[in-house]
Amino acid sequence: MTRMTILTEADLRKIVKLDLDAVACVENAFRALATEKVAMPPILRLDIPEHRGEVDVKTAYVPGLDGFAIKISPGFFDNPKLGLPSTNGMMVLLSARTGLVEALLLDNGYLTDIRTAAAGAVAAKHLARPDAAIAAVFGAGMQAKLQLEALKLVRPIARARIWARDPVKAERTAGELRERLGIEVRAEPDAAAAIAGADVIVTTTPSTTPLIHAGFVAAGQHLTAMGSDAEHKNEIAPAVLRLADLYVADSAAQTRRLGELHHALDAGVIAGNAEVTELGAIIAGKKHGRRSPADITLADLTGTGVQDTAIAALARQRAEAAGVGTVFES
Amino acid sequence: MTRMTILTEADLRKIVKLDLDAVACVENAFRALATEKVAMPPILRLDIPEHRGEVDVKTAYVPGLDGFAIKISPGFFDNPKLGLPSTNGMMVLLSARTGLVEALLLDNGYLTDIRTAAAGAVAAKHLARPDAAIAAVFGAGMQAKLQLEALKLVRPIARARIWARDPVKAERTAGELRERLGIEVRAEPDAAAAIAGADVIVTTTPSTTPLIHAGFVAAGQHLTAMGSDAEHKNEIAPAVLRLADLYVADSAAQTRRLGELHHALDAGVIAGNAEVTELGAIIAGKKHGRRSPADITLADLTGTGVQDTAIAALARQRAEAAGVGTVFES
Repeated sequence: MTRMTILTEADLRKIVKLDLDAVACVENAFRALATEKVAMPPILRLDIPEHRGEVDVKTAYVPGLDGFAIKISPGFFDNPKLGLPSTNGMMVLLSARTGLVEALLLDNGYLTDIRTAAAGAVAAKHLARPDAAIAAVFGAGMQAKLQLEALKLVRPIARARIWARDPVKAERTAGELRERLGIEVRAEPDAAAAIAGADVIVTTTPSTTPLIHAGFVAAGQHLTAMGSDAEHKNEIAPAVLRLADLYVADSAAQTRRLGELHHALDAGVIAGNAEVTELGAIIAGKKHGRRSPADITLADLTGTGVQDTAIAALARQRAEAAGVGTVFES
Repeated sequence: MTRMTILTEADLRKIVKLDLDAVACVENAFRALATEKVAMPPILRLDIPEHRGEVDVKTAYVPGLDGFAIKISPGFFDNPKLGLPSTNGMMVLLSARTGLVEALLLDNGYLTDIRTAAAGAVAAKHLARPDAAIAAVFGAGMQAKLQLEALKLVRPIARARIWARDPVKAERTAGELRERLGIEVRAEPDAAAAIAGADVIVTTTPSTTPLIHAGFVAAGQHLTAMGSDAEHKNEIAPAVLRLADLYVADSAAQTRRLGELHHALDAGVIAGNAEVTELGAIIAGKKHGRRSPADITLADLTGTGVQDTAIAALARQRAEAAGVGTVFES
């Protein structure tokens, strides 16, 4: 007989929010990845091209945490035609000591949204100029909105521009964010103009061809690319990686295969044996981050299993403290 | 809002049993693997050596099936000291069209036991002599018991020997099987004696050194090795693979990495570029199986995601027909 707690999306929205606790949780996860014997196997990926579907399964074991998460993330890109969201999914939290299933987090992708946005905040916290006040966000979906909200947690963001392939969506998202965050947000249909004068730029699109070219980027800017989580995705032109004073990966092993780095390696712009700085090493003080206000820094985030394990552990801890969830025996 | 059905181990034990339907279900899965555009990514594996733990995640998409399973299989080998089973786990069934989670199969490993035993029956059905009457089973655990029961479904087994590292367990298992199956079953502490005169031999142990050597094996025998599902496991001496008239893999890609084949390749006994027959190709009539009563045949089963998807689809279909399960919304 196994006894587990089931947490629904509604439960999880009550107890885990995009706040400084979530940012600290993900920051600790990256630190652990750089300093502890974390086990993080390659992502399992299943493609179902007939239905424009893909599923990623991620996991990681972090020594010292009682549990580890296995996250199932489907993306089915014809779903909107059926009135369903493209992405959803769930996490399973298992005991690191016995392997027993302890909790089912039926989050429909909510915890992934939060941990992904929190990673953007962690990258900006360690790489963007402390006075960064102007943001440019590429994309107009859920993650675009959350990334701007996350930046505001760690930097004094006062103004933002939204670029999206569909200008109508860009306008709508800008309006929503203006209202929600109480800062000046406008849509900008020209990518170069969106970037000009911005202190921090975040890309959140599923683009397969670069949106940001070397000529767009200026001294002092920080870029976080979060859209590329699969081989074919690409938001940043390889030349930007050469131009950057500092390139930072969430996981070097993953960005070599899936991230913006992978395209720069393919293009021969970065040498195959180049040493890659990981975000966790900067957090842990083992590697330097930004060294001057004029540096161009670039964070390449593909999404890691340690983030999932960390946010799932936080959710379970909060659920226990708040007495939230349904106990189920099998 | 996602609506899913939760099936407990008790629910699943009521609706899915080790019978000819389960054997047909797994046989169809192997056939699909050989004849259809099945997508079956490599197994995701996480090791937690501090707690002698390991987790495998398997999946496969079979065209024509509405759903696909993602199976989480933990094995934590210190659990018996805590009064817990070593293996447990669950399956998640997702829609192949939308990626939505449709069912949680909280089987604690029950469906894996059934689909693994059924695979043994499928191998024997296509490779053992039709008159096979004497079985030898290596191992004394759950899978050893189920394998003998599975053999009885497809061959006129009248007598069996049980070999196990622990002779006390072998005696106990032999006694249980005698009572349960109504045939002559005895424990045999000598591996060579257990095999002598047997028509079909099944190995189900977690051994890391060969239990069966070439000198033990005689003309006409069929062997199924099911214990090796990880790089370090090894039940069959490489020389047996050279001796066999026909070597059959459940998945050539997997047995090259994880199965008995992997050790024979390492030992240089089988050439790296040797063509490997898959069980599904024999079922589909694309490759020959046993060609003479004197042939020695060997099935190397590492466990495949198609088996999981097939048994999960069967469970869901049966649950719907029987109105079993708890509907849960998130």
